Amino acid sequence: MARYDFASDNTAPAAPEAIAALAAANTGFASGYGTDPVTARAADLVRAMLDADAEVRFVASGTAANAISLAALCQPFEAVLAHEHAHICTDETGAPGFFGHGLGLVGLTGASGKIDPAALTGPLAAPDLSHRQSPAALSITNATEYGTVYAAEEVAALIQPVKAKGYGVHLDGARLANAAAAGFDLKAIRGLGVDILVVGGTKAGMPPTEAVVIFDRDIARRFDARLKQAGQLPSKGRFYAAPFIGMLEDGAIFRHAAHANAMAGKLAGLTPFKVRHPVEANAVFVEMDDERLAQLHRGGWFVYRFLDGSVRFMCSWATTEAAVEEMAEALRRLA
Amino acid sequence: MARYDFASDNTAPAAPEAIAALAAANTGFASGYGTDPVTARAADLVRAMLDADAEVRFVASGTAANAISLAALCQPFEAVLAHEHAHICTDETGAPGFFGHGLGLVGLTGASGKIDPAALTGPLAAPDLSHRQSPAALSITNATEYGTVYAAEEVAALIQPVKAKGYGVHLDGARLANAAAAGFDLKAIRGLGVDILVVGGTKAGMPPTEAVVIFDRDIARRFDARLKQAGQLPSKGRFYAAPFIGMLEDGAIFRHAAHANAMAGKLAGLTPFKVRHPVEANAVFVEMDDERLAQLHRGGWFVYRFLDGSVRFMCSWATTEAAVEEMAEALRRLA
Amino acid sequence: MARYDFASDNTAPAAPEAIAALAAANTGFASGYGTDPVTARAADLVRAMLDADAEVRFVASGTAANAISLAALCQPFEAVLAHEHAHICTDETGAPGFFGHGLGLVGLTGASGKIDPAALTGPLAAPDLSHRQSPAALSITNATEYGTVYAAEEVAALIQPVKAKGYGVHLDGARLANAAAAGFDLKAIRGLGVDILVVGGTKAGMPPTEAVVIFDRDIARRFDARLKQAGQLPSKGRFYAAPFIGMLEDGAIFRHAAHANAMAGKLAGLTPFKVRHPVEANAVFVEMDDERLAQLHRGGWFVYRFLDGSVRFMCSWATTEAAVEEMAEALRRLA
Amino acid sequence: MARYDFASDNTAPAAPEAIAALAAANTGFASGYGTDPVTARAADLVRAMLDADAEVRFVASGTAANAISLAALCQPFEAVLAHEHAHICTDETGAPGFFGHGLGLVGLTGASGKIDPAALTGPLAAPDLSHRQSPAALSITNATEYGTVYAAEEVAALIQPVKAKGYGVHLDGARLANAAAAGFDLKAIRGLGVDILVVGGTKAGMPPTEAVVIFDRDIARRFDARLKQAGQLPSKGRFYAAPFIGMLEDGAIFRHAAHANAMAGKLAGLTPFKVRHPVEANAVFVEMDDERLAQLHRGGWFVYRFLDGSVRFMCSWATTEAAVEEMAEALRRLA
Repeated sequence: MARYDFASDNTAPAAPEAIAALAAANTGFASGYGTDPVTARAADLVRAMLDADAEVRFVASGTAANAISLAALCQPFEAVLAHEHAHICTDETGAPGFFGHGLGLVGLTGASGKIDPAALTGPLAAPDLSHRQSPAALSITNATEYGTVYAAEEVAALIQPVKAKGYGVHLDGARLANAAAAGFDLKAIRGLGVDILVVGGTKAGMPPTEAVVIFDRDIARRFDARLKQAGQLPSKGRFYAAPFIGMLEDGAIFRHAAHANAMAGKLAGLTPFKVRHPVEANAVFVEMDDERLAQLHRGGWFVYRFLDGSVRFMCSWATTEAAVEEMAEALRRLA
Repeated sequence: MARYDFASDNTAPAAPEAIAALAAANTGFASGYGTDPVTARAADLVRAMLDADAEVRFVASGTAANAISLAALCQPFEAVLAHEHAHICTDETGAPGFFGHGLGLVGLTGASGKIDPAALTGPLAAPDLSHRQSPAALSITNATEYGTVYAAEEVAALIQPVKAKGYGVHLDGARLANAAAAGFDLKAIRGLGVDILVVGGTKAGMPPTEAVVIFDRDIARRFDARLKQAGQLPSKGRFYAAPFIGMLEDGAIFRHAAHANAMAGKLAGLTPFKVRHPVEANAVFVEMDDERLAQLHRGGWFVYRFLDGSVRFMCSWATTEAAVEEMAEALRRLA
Repeated sequence: MARYDFASDNTAPAAPEAIAALAAANTGFASGYGTDPVTARAADLVRAMLDADAEVRFVASGTAANAISLAALCQPFEAVLAHEHAHICTDETGAPGFFGHGLGLVGLTGASGKIDPAALTGPLAAPDLSHRQSPAALSITNATEYGTVYAAEEVAALIQPVKAKGYGVHLDGARLANAAAAGFDLKAIRGLGVDILVVGGTKAGMPPTEAVVIFDRDIARRFDARLKQAGQLPSKGRFYAAPFIGMLEDGAIFRHAAHANAMAGKLAGLTPFKVRHPVEANAVFVEMDDERLAQLHRGGWFVYRFLDGSVRFMCSWATTEAAVEEMAEALRRLA
Repeated sequence: MARYDFASDNTAPAAPEAIAALAAANTGFASGYGTDPVTARAADLVRAMLDADAEVRFVASGTAANAISLAALCQPFEAVLAHEHAHICTDETGAPGFFGHGLGLVGLTGASGKIDPAALTGPLAAPDLSHRQSPAALSITNATEYGTVYAAEEVAALIQPVKAKGYGVHLDGARLANAAAAGFDLKAIRGLGVDILVVGGTKAGMPPTEAVVIFDRDIARRFDARLKQAGQLPSKGRFYAAPFIGMLEDGAIFRHAAHANAMAGKLAGLTPFKVRHPVEANAVFVEMDDERLAQLHRGGWFVYRFLDGSVRFMCSWATTEAAVEEMAEALRRLA
């Protein structure tokens, strides 16, 4: 039997709080395109979570949310600085270049998914040359692709030189809830200089939905038209907003994220394989050869080898202790 | 109190069958990006509905679904022929040009939203000139923006000369269920020469979801990558597929559409205002001056003046007889 | 024998002053990409012609120059207001949408190619709706496609309400020399509020070259990278700059334009056909039926029926008095 | 005094044969947009040079010519395989992504600018994944960025596995004349499976012009519209075609290229610095530290450090023996 428990955090179903809120919102007629009261209430909750006044939109796709954000920060003849293994660089089929009409991506190095501040120096110091795409923005992911979490000061250290050049900052928060559960202060984000933020709903346990938070009001101009043209202004907006209400109004999103993080911690403690990266959020990466990975696959467990060569085990709100123990047992048999 | 009952068919909540199927699909872990069994089952139901073998994808946005379809049929230096008041021409913020990288739209005339076959003749006969965007595809909408419904023979008459030129055909079925309920034979679509079809879920009473049906296998090549890059390959695909299961497996979609059409028919029979277009699907367009429209708005009823100058009243699966009678009464008071 | 004398002003050869300057510039090695002294000198002459400090670039294509200018003024989800028969709307294969990634064009009416100020009112007053591409710029062409010339006050009347909305202004000066020869004051352009101007070299009698003049320094940011990415930053820049030196340093461009205008005036005086538009620059549009146009073609004379249904006769620096008389004689025989 | 003799091969003036042909073509009126007899004659000469029937177009920009070619071979959700230091990857400001609407570039390794056939294996064997841009074309540059020249068999070894996958092939021939002068057989190109070729005019000693040669007739469909929309269909086409006549009709292009190659060979023989790459065409790359490079710059000689860390000296048709000796002397003083 196929087991997707650890394949990704988007293989999980939606959490009951999200579904209940969606069902609750599904009554009566409502105005379209995000002008309804459900959307207004969800946006308020996002602002409260961030302790910041900002424009908030709810969209269907994280890929589109990130790519549209980058297009709002950069011209096609400019480039985004990001970790070389960031989702936007490796897993979105060139969406930034599509939504950004050819904008470039400059991959930066750094251990365990975190951009090395030293890696920023060269690109920021390089002269503007007409035959290269010079940087216009930085994209940071928190939690990172490798399950590590930036502290606020680490983010600040990356943003400061970027802002000094007048460039924009995008925060990919597909797993922001996991970062928060690991101690990242969401109320600090605005003060750090982030211009646009994507708060992941999908990986946090909602049906497909992402919140785009626009701190920089200049970018917000005609943003609904920008979204509409890009196929991301839902007519029935309440279906993307409601899950955030269910997950935010009593903090369910953070409880679920803390659970996911704890499950990863538990699995890291039980696995006999060498753990490659610090386990700070909801992922465990282990060193495993092809033969053992194939055996795991044959046992029905879907997990994937990642870009750094290690094998990723992803936990979510729905990962059970029992599943972690089953997986640990499977790993012990392999080792 | 604001009343959106007749503002659009996307102001309605989702129908119980769709929500129940969504809830039923929300159990356990599932593989991502449309590879799960829920998506497979929904695709089978769409194929059965159309009596055709075809690739089926479920996406979040009708705007994107249409625009991506057109981009698959045309190069940026080509154009799509469509009714001048088609949704793609007037209400999607230039999405075809965005997803199609500058592709052009050529608006065709025709009464009550149906393309006049004679209007096709000129554009199809025009020589290929390098300084114009020559047509490469036809887009037809059924039911039309004006609540009329093409018969299969009418569609055939439009498609035949287009296919004779070797061009592609897109069918915007945002309200295909309403057309079907009005007698349009869905099993005839493939035989008519349609290359790519968008089956509307949202306006049919589902949470946001649209089915893209690709009859032409050449277009289907790497279509998942096309969708992913465009932000329309949902990781949690079952949330877009499940509503189609609930609505298709026992024909609920057609019962609901027949109800919506009947409500429009009822309203057309009761309104004292002159009805502008044949009421064949779920919309009624009446001739009303600004003063009366403003009074209606002041009474809390949101309805909109359309491009042809008439005022649109849209019905949906959720429109009640009582609401139609309330509206009729409001209209009688205005007249 | 085929005669292209009146087919367009781009059928003419390059004027001797342009060719001489090109030959003079073709000596020794020069730095690339517009950093050479020839380019600097030509840019100075353009600035002097306009009596304005501005960034100046020399590019190969008027189509690209216009489209890149519009892309610099508008986002893809916005639109450009222009005369419905402006070159950017009708003769550039959708280049604005290509370079502008889907930006829209809104065609405005107006007699003889001049935008009617009243036609601006509606689009400028329309509310920003997310499902339409709202305007962000105005594009004016002087001399117009129909050989008429805006006076500075007429341009001011169009620009004032556009600037009041905070939108940008583009001036397509493919035939700016003809407008100047007809009395349009080039030194007034900057003061009128134009943000970006394309000064036509090609139709003015040069080998292919156009000057892009950027008055708004915000737009100028990284403009060389913008041009390079779009294939319009020539490595051997002097070949695009030198012709402007030859034509500007002693005013040859205006002498030639005055001649072209005079030839059009002479032809208008001699033709027995009804002249459709005021002959203010270098074009004559006459009313002629298909049979007579076909006869003219059979006589070897290439001229084209235009969008307004009339037939265009274009004069250039190279049009001779003898050719005008020949054409007049041919027309008299037809009438 | 600034010396650009070795800075690039586009710092040279145009060769007398090219200028003479241009002057000869500048007589009388001619039909526009590449329909004139000069363009027809030049296209014939290009076909004869390649011994192949093919569509030929003359455009202004090599950057655009390459990017448009790649856009004709790939969808935006696909990628081009190319040497990691190919001009399209490093020096065109992301033009392939701009003209190709987000298409990806996959950089391949290989010594001295030649793609290592082994580097192709991985990308060609990788499964089509929806979250990556899978390859659809290979781009080869001959002569390479590092002044080396592929033999026909080397090109065949790269193309064979690419064609076996059904992908397209682009040949960037910015320095094709230099490759030919070094022994690369131009008449073999079509047989090798190249679908589209750009023959460099600019670096070969012409005023700005490039020939696009379309061997694959499917790609050629509506190619003039493709070019027009992209700003590369010159109205005065003869100015881009004529230089090819002057350079091809008696083989001047190859004499000049052989001279450029010989000058590079001479300089390689005289330089006291270590030469990094085989000198097979018109470039010499030497190993030089920053201090010495700065001294060279202070002496007025503009040359550039390249991506591989070495310093490039480029020769052209116009490089004189005296200049080579001057440069050799300057290098000897530095060493």
